[in-house]
Amino acid sequence: MAGEFELIERYFTGRGALRDDVAVGVGDDGAVLSVPAGQQLVAVADTIVDRVHFPVGSDPADVGHRALAVNLSDLAAMGAVPAWATVCLTLPTGDEAWCEAFAAGFDALARAHGVALVGGDTTRGPLAISVQLLGLVPAGQALTRRGARPGDLVYVTGWPGDAAAGLALLQGRLAGQGADRSWLVRRFRRPEPRVEFGVRLRGLASACIDVSDGLAVDLGRLAASSGVAALLRADAVPLSRALYALAGEAGAREFALGGGDDYELLFTVPLARRGDLAGLQGPGAPALHCIGEIAAGHGLKVRAGGVDLPVRGYDHFPD
Amino acid sequence: MAGEFELIERYFTGRGALRDDVAVGVGDDGAVLSVPAGQQLVAVADTIVDRVHFPVGSDPADVGHRALAVNLSDLAAMGAVPAWATVCLTLPTGDEAWCEAFAAGFDALARAHGVALVGGDTTRGPLAISVQLLGLVPAGQALTRRGARPGDLVYVTGWPGDAAAGLALLQGRLAGQGADRSWLVRRFRRPEPRVEFGVRLRGLASACIDVSDGLAVDLGRLAASSGVAALLRADAVPLSRALYALAGEAGAREFALGGGDDYELLFTVPLARRGDLAGLQGPGAPALHCIGEIAAGHGLKVRAGGVDLPVRGYDHFPD
Repeated sequence: MAGEFELIERYFTGRGALRDDVAVGVGDDGAVLSVPAGQQLVAVADTIVDRVHFPVGSDPADVGHRALAVNLSDLAAMGAVPAWATVCLTLPTGDEAWCEAFAAGFDALARAHGVALVGGDTTRGPLAISVQLLGLVPAGQALTRRGARPGDLVYVTGWPGDAAAGLALLQGRLAGQGADRSWLVRRFRRPEPRVEFGVRLRGLASACIDVSDGLAVDLGRLAASSGVAALLRADAVPLSRALYALAGEAGAREFALGGGDDYELLFTVPLARRGDLAGLQGPGAPALHCIGEIAAGHGLKVRAGGVDLPVRGYDHFPD
Repeated sequence: MAGEFELIERYFTGRGALRDDVAVGVGDDGAVLSVPAGQQLVAVADTIVDRVHFPVGSDPADVGHRALAVNLSDLAAMGAVPAWATVCLTLPTGDEAWCEAFAAGFDALARAHGVALVGGDTTRGPLAISVQLLGLVPAGQALTRRGARPGDLVYVTGWPGDAAAGLALLQGRLAGQGADRSWLVRRFRRPEPRVEFGVRLRGLASACIDVSDGLAVDLGRLAASSGVAALLRADAVPLSRALYALAGEAGAREFALGGGDDYELLFTVPLARRGDLAGLQGPGAPALHCIGEIAAGHGLKVRAGGVDLPVRGYDHFPD
């Protein structure tokens, strides 16, 4: 087994994209990075923990992908272009095969998004990974959760609920086989953050958040940050064919409203500008559905067939 | 017990210094930060884990201090001025008293160094804290580990070994009472990173590293990064009065050479510029001692009384 220092050097040096703006990368006390004039820095940080955010025995390449993906999704919600990452990896043992696969999963997604791995550390302890990701956005153009106004429409990208159903399949809480199972499990194992789409929402979305803890909970957060009320029309929430097939309509809707780990974007657009969304669609762009609206006041209502539903979501520390 | 979201809001909003360059702070998907023209960004990230980096039952205010201090020390070694931090806190339970004390310990040190807490997350899991810290340095002026050249002299700030002896006292591996014990234990519990001094070393030190894993090991790293050999004169390593009193000369030297957690700066200065160090001394500046020299070649020698000693240090994953 190699020493900590050698592990870091061996598995993390040169990972991710090569970038000219990295003056000093992995292997010093810190990384030295050049921020272009006219750009602001966007900083996000998220931890994933064994048995909390991924099941026991997960493929380490999936874990490497997830550790970066959850952070890319946060940058996507800000409309930022990813640039540089640091990784703090806590491992029970210096398992070289695990590190190699983890680094490969991280690396592939990092290269796809132009992210250089510039630093971090490796520590002995219970398995957990904290990634800090830095991105760039033209000054004053970052998306936030705060700008939703009464009358705005609420949209979501893609197919919420798929990832939660994929986890339920892996944990035996949902049954299913074949292509539908494969689709849903892959949606959990390999979330695809909506980075390019987030950039295209700059100047159009009035507020944006990524769906990490569930559509309803995250819409409630967006509304609270904006100081407005939100109505979520459950009947309008899109359901993937696979989710519908394996969970049935009621189950599918429950996964879509309350399930976490979607990493879709949930955003608001002023009514007068809804037509501009058409310009964002096309090959490679995610599906878009209008699922609600913003009103004056505060709080979240979830309505299905004219009836208000209770709001549920995921909370690491339930009351 | 409050939910995760409320915990984050309650204990981490508004912590650290207030800074005009934080356009969006805690409470959104990411922080939006303005980097001044002519400055480069320096990014560091370090994790501390329960029972690995601090003893069971540590005062949470000490843990909050330590989580930031180890990262401030990395910035100090780069000659950077600290600016913005994110904290990823993994906790077994949503213990509010612990969080409050942790945040207070973090906050006091952050304010002292002008650091704003701009984001992060709170997750359920085994106790660990990852801090990512961003600092600023005039473009091209960052200190690195790479610039040491044959003939340079090696210096260390302060009193290496004190912190390791303080931990040994807490763990019963070393005996002692009174003012000496208090001094050493405090040096472990409340490391004071040499941030201001690191900034003053810009343009003078040819290479710099912070002493986190032991004087000998970290000098070996600096030499390896610079592609040179280093000689550490053990007889010249300063020993604090308290360390000498409780550990005796041989024990004190062992703590000073091999103990971790010092967070002193270890740096090299060209022989011709040694006189310029005088300008860095004075009230508030750390003690400085010349403890070795750089030569052509590679590797580290530790010499005491003309005899070469074996090199030891701390490694999380020993061979």
